[in-house]
Amino acid sequence: MTTASVNSLTEVLDSGRTLVGPALRSAVERHLGPEMSRVSGYHLGWADADGRPAGAWGGKLVRPTLVLLSARAAGAPAADGVPAAVALELVHNFSLLHDDIMDGDETRRRRATAWTVFGVPSAILAGDALITAATSVLVEAPAAGAGAATAALMAATQRMINGQAADVAFEHRDDVPLSECVRMAGDKTGALLGCACSLGAALVGAGRDLVDGLAAFGEHIGLAFQLVDDLLGIWGDPASTGKAVGADLRVGKKSLPVVAALNAPGSEELRALYLRPEPLDEDGVRRVTALVERAGGRDWAREEAARQTAAAAESLAACGVPDDVRAEFADIAEFIVGRSL
Amino acid sequence: MTTASVNSLTEVLDSGRTLVGPALRSAVERHLGPEMSRVSGYHLGWADADGRPAGAWGGKLVRPTLVLLSARAAGAPAADGVPAAVALELVHNFSLLHDDIMDGDETRRRRATAWTVFGVPSAILAGDALITAATSVLVEAPAAGAGAATAALMAATQRMINGQAADVAFEHRDDVPLSECVRMAGDKTGALLGCACSLGAALVGAGRDLVDGLAAFGEHIGLAFQLVDDLLGIWGDPASTGKAVGADLRVGKKSLPVVAALNAPGSEELRALYLRPEPLDEDGVRRVTALVERAGGRDWAREEAARQTAAAAESLAACGVPDDVRAEFADIAEFIVGRSL
Repeated sequence: MTTASVNSLTEVLDSGRTLVGPALRSAVERHLGPEMSRVSGYHLGWADADGRPAGAWGGKLVRPTLVLLSARAAGAPAADGVPAAVALELVHNFSLLHDDIMDGDETRRRRATAWTVFGVPSAILAGDALITAATSVLVEAPAAGAGAATAALMAATQRMINGQAADVAFEHRDDVPLSECVRMAGDKTGALLGCACSLGAALVGAGRDLVDGLAAFGEHIGLAFQLVDDLLGIWGDPASTGKAVGADLRVGKKSLPVVAALNAPGSEELRALYLRPEPLDEDGVRRVTALVERAGGRDWAREEAARQTAAAAESLAACGVPDDVRAEFADIAEFIVGRSL
Repeated sequence: MTTASVNSLTEVLDSGRTLVGPALRSAVERHLGPEMSRVSGYHLGWADADGRPAGAWGGKLVRPTLVLLSARAAGAPAADGVPAAVALELVHNFSLLHDDIMDGDETRRRRATAWTVFGVPSAILAGDALITAATSVLVEAPAAGAGAATAALMAATQRMINGQAADVAFEHRDDVPLSECVRMAGDKTGALLGCACSLGAALVGAGRDLVDGLAAFGEHIGLAFQLVDDLLGIWGDPASTGKAVGADLRVGKKSLPVVAALNAPGSEELRALYLRPEPLDEDGVRRVTALVERAGGRDWAREEAARQTAAAAESLAACGVPDDVRAEFADIAEFIVGRSL
């Protein structure tokens, strides 16, 4: 990435935040009741647990910025994509609120998760309130494609839910084929990112080819991101990932590099060690890490991430979007995927 | 209720089930992935925990039948209201799945609740899958009012979530005014029933006056139902309610008759007894029951239920719907509200 494009990326993200941030906040205030506004405001980083303002909005709002770009890809002003950007970000946060409960995660963005602060019932309800508000914002948008965009967002959300359900089910299965694991990741991570890269275009009434092409670009980026995320979860630097090395392995997670290794020839020792119900100790984590690499899980995941990144670029090129929009899409994609391996 | 109208009620509910049942099932199969279909099919009574068919569909589908009636109220055939009926029933079941988790309820319709069978994560996800499918079904319906109906369903869902959130918050509050409790019940129970009585009309493109009038009718019915339900929770016959007498009082629930009594003059003993954090024992439940009645909570709730029922009839009469539709609405309303007090 050149210095020029770094600046441009910062500018693009800043301008996305400027357009979407206030609209997101006003959507939450308009659609949610006071209890749910409080829980959601905490989760979104606007307020502390007592509802007192907690400084400026902290999120990067990368997904909503992609939504705005997709409106521009269809020849509309970025501002026309704002309801879609808000709806997408609300769905993303609905899923975070519920995932944190399901996974028992106690921190997110270096703060206590909502369910640990407000209890499980309030966090379930706050997620419900956000997906309901997302639909309201989008279906009420005064735009030609409001209905089609709402349908597209719901289809992506349903796939995301399927992916999360498959991920939960994998925990209890010893026989997950690699193809099924790739599909799970595509559903869990790819579907919503594909939607982010196309929802603004859908809202402004773009044709099916453009919407589908942009969605394919985003899906490939989502899958590449997940592969990199899984690699970093095993071989990443804890200082930069903020995650303890081996955390995924310790709990027996069926991540992409691991499933690739489990399905490779000669994985008997890995299977014997990893498919036991007990959590691994430090030595076990080290041994499993070495065995996943030896069975080719690391190489496969790196190569697959490169293939998905290349496929994303091809999909984007085939869309025929204006050059400036394409360059910004590519910069954000690199920002999402391109963490050091 | 005359014998003639009992027959007619049975016929109305049967014909509603015949139209909506298969569409509901096909919506679940079309929109949900295999894991979520399994959990939802169990929750909906179609299958046992292993996915084997569990006899015929067991629900009465009263709400979807109201939706179909509202399409007829607007002069359309009942069949035109089917997508709205399916969506409404899916939202209702989304709320049941999540409510059972929040309330820790272990049985529903005399079966183990989904979260006790599949775990909390799968039950959260199944609820999420159902509300997402509800929106898909409605927004994709080939009807003039698909967008407006989706917006109305989401607004009602948001109110239902607010009501549930307020109900959860009331547990930790000693100072709930009666007006706030009535609003909570209107949100929690009235909003979705009001939506059921008007969503079919909204879907077929009826005017605002008819949709609003039908919604008001349903809201009053919903509130009357909640008052009766709260009365039965304290003074009902366990054999016919299927609920242990005093269960609500034992856990300190802020139901409508109780809040009316807590806010009445001379309720010092009741407040001292009921607002303690410890659950009540048998003697305590008996004493509280007597004190709620003495403070006028029972009379107020009965009178308020009668007022809401009368207001419902007035709203319905003002709508100017065809006589046969009005008679069927009135019969179902009586069926919903008119359990023995």
